[in-house]
Amino acid sequence: MMRKMDWKLQLSIALILGIGAVVFHPVLALALDGKIDGKAVEAGKYAMDTVWVVLTAVLVFFMQAGFACVEAGFTRAKNTVNIMMKNFLDFCMSSLAYWAIGFGLMFGNGNALFGLTGFFTAAGTGDQYSALNWTSVPTLSAWFFQLVFAGTAATIVSGAMAERTKFGAYLIYSFVISLLIYPVIGHWIWGGGWLASLGMLDFAGSTVVHSVGGWLALSGVLLLGPRMGKYSKDGSVNPIPGHNIGLATLGTFILWMGWFGFNPGSTMAADAAGIAITAVTTNIAAAAGAIDAMAVAWARFKKPDVGMTLNGALAGLVGITASAFFVTPLAAVIIGLLSGTAVVYGVLFFERRGIDDPVGAISVHGVCGALGTILLGFFHTEKGLLYAADSAAALRFLAIQGGGVLAVFVTAMASGLLLFKLLQITLGLRVSPEEEFGGLDLGEHGASAYPDFQPVTIGRHPSGVGHLGEQHAPVPSLAPAPAAMESGLRS
Amino acid sequence: MMRKMDWKLQLSIALILGIGAVVFHPVLALALDGKIDGKAVEAGKYAMDTVWVVLTAVLVFFMQAGFACVEAGFTRAKNTVNIMMKNFLDFCMSSLAYWAIGFGLMFGNGNALFGLTGFFTAAGTGDQYSALNWTSVPTLSAWFFQLVFAGTAATIVSGAMAERTKFGAYLIYSFVISLLIYPVIGHWIWGGGWLASLGMLDFAGSTVVHSVGGWLALSGVLLLGPRMGKYSKDGSVNPIPGHNIGLATLGTFILWMGWFGFNPGSTMAADAAGIAITAVTTNIAAAAGAIDAMAVAWARFKKPDVGMTLNGALAGLVGITASAFFVTPLAAVIIGLLSGTAVVYGVLFFERRGIDDPVGAISVHGVCGALGTILLGFFHTEKGLLYAADSAAALRFLAIQGGGVLAVFVTAMASGLLLFKLLQITLGLRVSPEEEFGGLDLGEHGASAYPDFQPVTIGRHPSGVGHLGEQHAPVPSLAPAPAAMESGLRS
Amino acid sequence: MMRKMDWKLQLSIALILGIGAVVFHPVLALALDGKIDGKAVEAGKYAMDTVWVVLTAVLVFFMQAGFACVEAGFTRAKNTVNIMMKNFLDFCMSSLAYWAIGFGLMFGNGNALFGLTGFFTAAGTGDQYSALNWTSVPTLSAWFFQLVFAGTAATIVSGAMAERTKFGAYLIYSFVISLLIYPVIGHWIWGGGWLASLGMLDFAGSTVVHSVGGWLALSGVLLLGPRMGKYSKDGSVNPIPGHNIGLATLGTFILWMGWFGFNPGSTMAADAAGIAITAVTTNIAAAAGAIDAMAVAWARFKKPDVGMTLNGALAGLVGITASAFFVTPLAAVIIGLLSGTAVVYGVLFFERRGIDDPVGAISVHGVCGALGTILLGFFHTEKGLLYAADSAAALRFLAIQGGGVLAVFVTAMASGLLLFKLLQITLGLRVSPEEEFGGLDLGEHGASAYPDFQPVTIGRHPSGVGHLGEQHAPVPSLAPAPAAMESGLRS
Repeated sequence: MMRKMDWKLQLSIALILGIGAVVFHPVLALALDGKIDGKAVEAGKYAMDTVWVVLTAVLVFFMQAGFACVEAGFTRAKNTVNIMMKNFLDFCMSSLAYWAIGFGLMFGNGNALFGLTGFFTAAGTGDQYSALNWTSVPTLSAWFFQLVFAGTAATIVSGAMAERTKFGAYLIYSFVISLLIYPVIGHWIWGGGWLASLGMLDFAGSTVVHSVGGWLALSGVLLLGPRMGKYSKDGSVNPIPGHNIGLATLGTFILWMGWFGFNPGSTMAADAAGIAITAVTTNIAAAAGAIDAMAVAWARFKKPDVGMTLNGALAGLVGITASAFFVTPLAAVIIGLLSGTAVVYGVLFFERRGIDDPVGAISVHGVCGALGTILLGFFHTEKGLLYAADSAAALRFLAIQGGGVLAVFVTAMASGLLLFKLLQITLGLRVSPEEEFGGLDLGEHGASAYPDFQPVTIGRHPSGVGHLGEQHAPVPSLAPAPAAMESGLRS
Repeated sequence: MMRKMDWKLQLSIALILGIGAVVFHPVLALALDGKIDGKAVEAGKYAMDTVWVVLTAVLVFFMQAGFACVEAGFTRAKNTVNIMMKNFLDFCMSSLAYWAIGFGLMFGNGNALFGLTGFFTAAGTGDQYSALNWTSVPTLSAWFFQLVFAGTAATIVSGAMAERTKFGAYLIYSFVISLLIYPVIGHWIWGGGWLASLGMLDFAGSTVVHSVGGWLALSGVLLLGPRMGKYSKDGSVNPIPGHNIGLATLGTFILWMGWFGFNPGSTMAADAAGIAITAVTTNIAAAAGAIDAMAVAWARFKKPDVGMTLNGALAGLVGITASAFFVTPLAAVIIGLLSGTAVVYGVLFFERRGIDDPVGAISVHGVCGALGTILLGFFHTEKGLLYAADSAAALRFLAIQGGGVLAVFVTAMASGLLLFKLLQITLGLRVSPEEEFGGLDLGEHGASAYPDFQPVTIGRHPSGVGHLGEQHAPVPSLAPAPAAMESGLRS
Repeated sequence: MMRKMDWKLQLSIALILGIGAVVFHPVLALALDGKIDGKAVEAGKYAMDTVWVVLTAVLVFFMQAGFACVEAGFTRAKNTVNIMMKNFLDFCMSSLAYWAIGFGLMFGNGNALFGLTGFFTAAGTGDQYSALNWTSVPTLSAWFFQLVFAGTAATIVSGAMAERTKFGAYLIYSFVISLLIYPVIGHWIWGGGWLASLGMLDFAGSTVVHSVGGWLALSGVLLLGPRMGKYSKDGSVNPIPGHNIGLATLGTFILWMGWFGFNPGSTMAADAAGIAITAVTTNIAAAAGAIDAMAVAWARFKKPDVGMTLNGALAGLVGITASAFFVTPLAAVIIGLLSGTAVVYGVLFFERRGIDDPVGAISVHGVCGALGTILLGFFHTEKGLLYAADSAAALRFLAIQGGGVLAVFVTAMASGLLLFKLLQITLGLRVSPEEEFGGLDLGEHGASAYPDFQPVTIGRHPSGVGHLGEQHAPVPSLAPAPAAMESGLRS
């Protein structure tokens, strides 16, 4: 009996296990070969996040081309090679500087002021960047994503300082900003530093990236002075129109596209709802900014000005960057409108004060970067003054946003003035008047961007297209005229 | 004995459960902490679909830049600022109009003619758009994807009406198309309206997007009339060559790239097999269209014409858009070839009838959009006349495709004629002859796109570059050299 | 007793199954309704891999536009339509040739020399391409990804042979390379052919894609001879500067962006770690290449030359392509530096030997493609000479890399010489001197790329087809020599 029972029991056990195995078999099989265990699902998220982060980083990388086109288009033909080279090389310099030192300073484990680990970033060093713990992606793809942001901050400056800055000095500046200035300020807000501890928010970098670039540009322009011919002796302002508006428009489209990496990508994860709201607020702020700046300029100048319109879109994009993830589409419209207005008045404000910024970079990135960061204090759907239940907390949040903006302004200006002053008294910051007159393409690079085209010349063209005033008579906006060249060569 | 058995039984049960727990443990643990329950896997799909939809929407967004470059490149230097501004602003206007009203009209829950819910789109309003139930992505990312399609329909028109349309009138048009015309027609086919109920198919918008743009362009050109100098008094046609073929080619490349968002993205899900077939048919139709249009033009004009070739690629792309998901690569080759031929004869057809379309937009988007939608009736691998077992059903499907094309043609033409007529009798649709002659850049925007370059002028340029013959003498292809123009031309 | 036991046993079994069912229920439910069975999880990976492969293929597609801009920018205005048409059409021809035959030859099941299955690629034919078994994606998306690589190899040649090659002959060449030459060589390394069997590695195609394009370019240039005016009668070299440096720079940015598809996409799977390391090494090699080439040129020519700098970035990108997945960021810096140096000396080497390559394609793609493939023999983190424990195996690997490079060089050169010789003695390879002088735009296409702009003239220039007085016969279209300009301006 006992044996029988044993036999029956054994049979039962075998039977039960057998039925269980059959029933649970598909799951079991997968579990055993590891396909749907925890790691597999995690791996799915890990892979998807990485795909997202790398592809949006590529979009942000392409903003380098957008800046190059905008800056070249808004300046003169004789400086096109130079501005293109500056935009190209600053990203190259950033790539090395941010790899060797910058990323570690910004996201490395350290103190409230800077990071101290993770220099010369390599694969498998994730534990050295605890400030990036919240993203699942491999360290190297996080580095790549952060690099293209560093490159954006760096390249903003070239436009404001265009048409008169020495190439070598600019290269050194671009190395230092990505090595030191941008990473340290970035650490304060994104790397777990003191502004982060206070609770400052800057989703994708209105302050961290754009205002840093904008204020460094301002410091450089203050030391550099305006372009020859920008101001008449009586102090009146002479417009110096850009030489290729099609290129500038293409560049703005590229920047707008790149911003769909810049902002939605800043989720650093394939977070569907987050991506969706961020893409929408980004787009709608750009549209509102462009329409608003066009309308303001139209009312003021009686024409829908192309430069102001394109800068209005960029202003909206910079303005929404701090808050894209945190606000409603309607708030994004308002942020875009305010930014569009701010950029028009910003450009006029700086121009009248002798601060000659050929592309409006200080207003777009500095002013609207600061504005957008502060506006988050109003429009954040949980913490903002217009939404929060606790007004005191909201006011505190707003004050921290404003205080952070101020702290970054002071630091960036001080760093910029120091750096550019050092360059000025060593290498020299500005090209010679002769070189500025002849164009930096020829002077710095021995080249012309458009050797096959007849440039506008003096004499036959006394007044130009309304912007080449008499100050241009002695110093015309000349691209090299080959006829002159040939005769020169042969004489 | 009994107790012993009980004890043995209990042991057995414990044993079996223990073994089961060990064996099934990894799965069990996951199931219990929710990591691989239904939601987690669904979340994976949700995130992946959203990544796909947003990134392809970004590609489609970039088509705005492609249209800007193509249209600027195929028109004259003196209108470049204007055409760029139109391409830039129409997307801005669309962004606001389609957010406020358009999307709700198109995809909102409503009747056979239009939707009535979901205006001022916000997060978490998915139940207001039952026509989009089939896609998993967040409402706001669906909005973003659909917006860039609305923007495409809007921007098609600027090219056909280029070089003579008032800027303000164009802005209003672009607002109205995205607010009203495109959404209503779109509702019929994509929003669950009456053509959808009949069974009409238009995968990514040969009809919904492209033909709507093309027919609106046709209605505008009919009211606007040809450009000055396009036709001689004896009725002969004068070519007015585009001013920057490199820019036009770059624009076509950008459009082709954007189409990999336009068509494969229209799966609105990370559907591997669907994405794959759609990308392939899209590409191969473009290639076949370009080669075919080049060959037809080569045979006819004895030269491989660049304008016809680029338009051939766009024709193939427009033609395959309705069917990209539903046909084989071989069918895509045939659709591309037919579209390439259609665009060459379309351009010649309209040009001879006094319909002056500077960039060929009516032929590319209107004619090939209609053609492609009808060809789906032949090539659909299940329902098409060449494949279906049930010929009667296939003929019915073909008739519905054709009927839908016709209904959209009639509606778009009527809407366009009404809208542009209203603009004509209120604001005015066309700039003054003086302004057209001097260029819209100067007249509308007070700017020149290329102030640093010497434009080609009359007299000094007797033979031109092979296409600026004496028929251009009264209406030359002038870039605005205001000084020269004012004094030289009027003296 | 027995029955009781049976009854108890039965109860026990039921009980155990019941408990098991309750405990395992969530998993079981899902398994039964198929949501997390093997297919669902596999489908997730399948979809994600496809999203990745298609989007990176789109980036690589866009490199066509990059090549077009670089090649147009680095050549003269009078040949812009022609170079754009060549870049546009070669991809169209490749699309058809690689679909019909090329892909089957390259990845079809066959022998050590070529594939024999899978022509006229259609959906669901995966078993015909066993060499692609390692990727999960649908056959058609694998085809699309491989097509854009074939198109890259094809388009490299147009730049080197620019400004003098007949359009029709070029079209035939572009068809044959994608039909035959590229696929056969590609089969050897990527399609399971004899070099793959030996163990040769070429991650994303330094040899397979770039050197094949580069060597075919070299063979074409050898048969074609230099452009008119490139060499004076005394043998001295005359620079013929490119006509649009902004366009060339934009093109280089586009290529750099496209390379983030080219290299990381070559994982052909959403492999997070692989994507991350590949993106980083790709970027850092480009940056190092640009800085290095600029520095070398600066030291040599006393100016930071824009052409050399842009080519330096491309050199770094070509150089890292073979190894991007297999090396550390530090190694990528070194590979970039070596490639940057190689391209400067390569350009000077070929130029001095009468091999007139207007854009430097032979040096960038041929020389740096070969160099990068060999450098993998040193820097591969497992197999490379600097890392491997087994030096003999490392030396063998290095020898195989070198031997493979040599075999591809010999095959590509022989194929190229044969193909271009056949074209030369049938259609003719080179345009007439009159056409070359007047520009291929007018001669081949009856068009001008820039009809609205005044070309550079030498005072008298009667015909208006740009800057081509007879004085240009010996040294046409000079880049502005600074000294000349200064004296000209000042005289």
